[in-house]
Amino acid sequence: MELLVDHHCHGVVRRDLDRAAFEARLTEADQPAPGTTLFDSALGDALRAHCFPLLDVASDASPEAYLERRAALGHAEVGRRMLRAAGLAAVLVDTGWAPEPLTSPASLGDLAGAAAYEVVRLEAVAEALGDGVSAGGFAAAVRSSLAAAAVRGTTVAFKSVAAYRVGLGLGDERPSDAAVAAAAGRWLAGGGGRLADEVLHRFLAFAALDTGLPLQFHTGLGDRDVDLRSCDPLLLAPWLRAAEPTGVPVLLLHCYPFHRHAAYLAQVFPTVHMDLGLTTHNVGARAAAVLAEALELCPYGKFLYSSDGFALPELHFLGAALFRSAAGGELARRTTENAHRVYPAVGVPGPGR
Amino acid sequence: MELLVDHHCHGVVRRDLDRAAFEARLTEADQPAPGTTLFDSALGDALRAHCFPLLDVASDASPEAYLERRAALGHAEVGRRMLRAAGLAAVLVDTGWAPEPLTSPASLGDLAGAAAYEVVRLEAVAEALGDGVSAGGFAAAVRSSLAAAAVRGTTVAFKSVAAYRVGLGLGDERPSDAAVAAAAGRWLAGGGGRLADEVLHRFLAFAALDTGLPLQFHTGLGDRDVDLRSCDPLLLAPWLRAAEPTGVPVLLLHCYPFHRHAAYLAQVFPTVHMDLGLTTHNVGARAAAVLAEALELCPYGKFLYSSDGFALPELHFLGAALFRSAAGGELARRTTENAHRVYPAVGVPGPGR
Amino acid sequence: MELLVDHHCHGVVRRDLDRAAFEARLTEADQPAPGTTLFDSALGDALRAHCFPLLDVASDASPEAYLERRAALGHAEVGRRMLRAAGLAAVLVDTGWAPEPLTSPASLGDLAGAAAYEVVRLEAVAEALGDGVSAGGFAAAVRSSLAAAAVRGTTVAFKSVAAYRVGLGLGDERPSDAAVAAAAGRWLAGGGGRLADEVLHRFLAFAALDTGLPLQFHTGLGDRDVDLRSCDPLLLAPWLRAAEPTGVPVLLLHCYPFHRHAAYLAQVFPTVHMDLGLTTHNVGARAAAVLAEALELCPYGKFLYSSDGFALPELHFLGAALFRSAAGGELARRTTENAHRVYPAVGVPGPGR
Repeated sequence: MELLVDHHCHGVVRRDLDRAAFEARLTEADQPAPGTTLFDSALGDALRAHCFPLLDVASDASPEAYLERRAALGHAEVGRRMLRAAGLAAVLVDTGWAPEPLTSPASLGDLAGAAAYEVVRLEAVAEALGDGVSAGGFAAAVRSSLAAAAVRGTTVAFKSVAAYRVGLGLGDERPSDAAVAAAAGRWLAGGGGRLADEVLHRFLAFAALDTGLPLQFHTGLGDRDVDLRSCDPLLLAPWLRAAEPTGVPVLLLHCYPFHRHAAYLAQVFPTVHMDLGLTTHNVGARAAAVLAEALELCPYGKFLYSSDGFALPELHFLGAALFRSAAGGELARRTTENAHRVYPAVGVPGPGR
Repeated sequence: MELLVDHHCHGVVRRDLDRAAFEARLTEADQPAPGTTLFDSALGDALRAHCFPLLDVASDASPEAYLERRAALGHAEVGRRMLRAAGLAAVLVDTGWAPEPLTSPASLGDLAGAAAYEVVRLEAVAEALGDGVSAGGFAAAVRSSLAAAAVRGTTVAFKSVAAYRVGLGLGDERPSDAAVAAAAGRWLAGGGGRLADEVLHRFLAFAALDTGLPLQFHTGLGDRDVDLRSCDPLLLAPWLRAAEPTGVPVLLLHCYPFHRHAAYLAQVFPTVHMDLGLTTHNVGARAAAVLAEALELCPYGKFLYSSDGFALPELHFLGAALFRSAAGGELARRTTENAHRVYPAVGVPGPGR
Repeated sequence: MELLVDHHCHGVVRRDLDRAAFEARLTEADQPAPGTTLFDSALGDALRAHCFPLLDVASDASPEAYLERRAALGHAEVGRRMLRAAGLAAVLVDTGWAPEPLTSPASLGDLAGAAAYEVVRLEAVAEALGDGVSAGGFAAAVRSSLAAAAVRGTTVAFKSVAAYRVGLGLGDERPSDAAVAAAAGRWLAGGGGRLADEVLHRFLAFAALDTGLPLQFHTGLGDRDVDLRSCDPLLLAPWLRAAEPTGVPVLLLHCYPFHRHAAYLAQVFPTVHMDLGLTTHNVGARAAAVLAEALELCPYGKFLYSSDGFALPELHFLGAALFRSAAGGELARRTTENAHRVYPAVGVPGPGR
């Protein structure tokens, strides 16, 4: 089995979960509708087919039976089984969102038997500046934080969640320091906290390019907070055009249902790459069909693999299992090669893995 | 054969039709282009394959031969054959649009051997107030009419055609009574008639929620009057978010070509459901492919069946035949179960059906 | 083999090409990303499978081997082989864009053994007026040029690239002569040159209708200059509605990834037709899947064939080979029949072709 580089994922929860807590983390929904269950879905079918057997549970068993067995094994053993079965060479872990304590990149790497790296979320960097920064000092403080993050050996990329906060319609000019100071002033006057200002997200994206590290963008589907219309990667085209002269790789994540749009951008812009991320496990057995649509235009050298697994190690495994089955050996191998080219620090795994 | 609940359809015409009249009702086009025929289409192929044999006409016969046989049998017998063959437990009939006299819900139910219910169109209720209402009295009159409609035993849902009139970009706040009065004043000053005012459509949608009955929305494709771009169900997301605390089920109808968008909404919003409606018969043999796309994200408990059959009973039958073949027995059964949950008044059909 | 009418293509280059020059013309990208090649793509796979053997090169040979053989045969022989193998009855050649000298329509027809006609680009006509026109005289000069072009026996259609310049959101009213004069004045004051003014593109489109010749519109994907969001053919709906009373056929070209949108327009507007154009060769083996999506709604009498081949005769051949394989004999035959109906001057090929 070809090892994959999971170039965008998150940690997993460090406790056992009851049915409600498990189901709340299964899809992008917070909860099922009354009288229904999110286990009855393409994702649920894939979970039964691929994950139940990994915990020695029959595929036609009930969710309760699965969750009982899961609790009996304990979250650590479940994590180990799922992440080992994922067959990963490396995990690149977005550490910028953890509504509850999740495994660190190193711990996730240990579970997976894979090299572990960090993807630093731009907004988390900015928001961490909090009280300690003035409006006029914001730009320099961000640049300094990003530079410090970039030189840590474990950091291999930055990530923007502008899609969630202001949409992907970022302007195509670097905001001036004065404009950044004014925007930061508004943000600080509002008490800091959650950043949602087009000027600041744009500034962060350009500032990330200056470090030379690849920049990942959330695009396409997400949880119910997202305005999906404003997550169409085509909205980012003006910014992508402006960013291109830097030569820094840009990674469009997830992309669904706009994956054909992303593939077009990946064809015509040399710096643009894409993956299907959380789409893969959400659509279950349809992963091959969606991948085929993405590869209509996306050159094979521009496509990467990620699971966007979050909280449940089942999602890290499902992503890999469904992708491998959809992509076949040759494309799976290519995505690993592509990840090594885009993230040179990740390195090529030796034969002894 | 599992009986289906056709949760959104219309009556059928009560006369025989010549070729031009039949073809004008076959698709969303008013007429074919010169030198072409709408029989040469995915829908036409499905008609030949599924409907011709029901009237004892060979599938490779000409449209003329079919229409001759159709006239010889008479519209009543054709309606009976088609609707019986559809295999329906219940029909939920939108009575709000009838450019010519159509069968009543009860008559359609008789043709189908199915229970019959009414879906009341919000705009028809408002427009019926006509001269008899003042701007200041509009809101109360609408509320009173909706409440009266809701307590009739036959009414099981309301329906909004805001998509056709102002698009789905409804605001996410209930308009104040003053705002409704002002908008009603503009409408009345213009002579009443066809409603097309965002404030009024939004008011109607919120007022419908107050009755507790499920609310259907036209979304996606429709006839040539529609601005398809403004029928993307994602435009409705802010309103859906605002409507969610009421717990009232919302049904996104048709959805194509935005069915993946609708499926995303059905996943993340507990109250949101979807169907493919008129898409199913329009795309003919591709119904399975389109359904597969919708079920990538839509939880199986949120998907319903409807034909959106209008005027031609062939469309009621084709929808059911194509859907059954696309969905398979298990999902077909689920859509009926889902309909009974969303519309409790429809009830579960007894074993003697 | 059924001969096809390639109702929209361009000339081919009149020189041999090295790998960089060939690859730059292969897709909509200007160049591959560092470390990747555009040969590794759906289009590249199709090139290997279909074109390599036509030059006696094994499908698993390297691009270099193919290009060596290509140079040894010489561009003229390659053009002849590819265009003959395309099996064309007629080529309709857009002569409005030639960053380097390309074969004329007559020469392309000779290579193909096909009848040759010209598609005149509206913007090229207007831009050619250059210095010789005043703002006030612009409208009359355009009308006169279009009328002259239309009566040349070789001209069978006009084409608009408004999508590239201002997007497809054209207004639905003919601009007044005063509005045209004002817009032309702004254009001339800016030195003339590349036209990009909604009023002028709209004027050109309406003026083209007045000649009675069919009008082609670029829609959907294109090179990196395009703002793909503004190439959604649904944006053109108001203009299409306004244009319909003229009865002049309108052709939506390429359409991807909005081909389902175009198909909807082709169903509901009698004058609207569509093709997949450059999509067909770009998506390679997925041509059948994309075509199936387009034919969900597009009536078979409204679908045409084109390659949009440009510069490389491989693209003219690939389009035809992939389309034939995707469409099957019956639909291929229909597209030729449709082309003859839309472009009566093209005529039905005699049995002796």
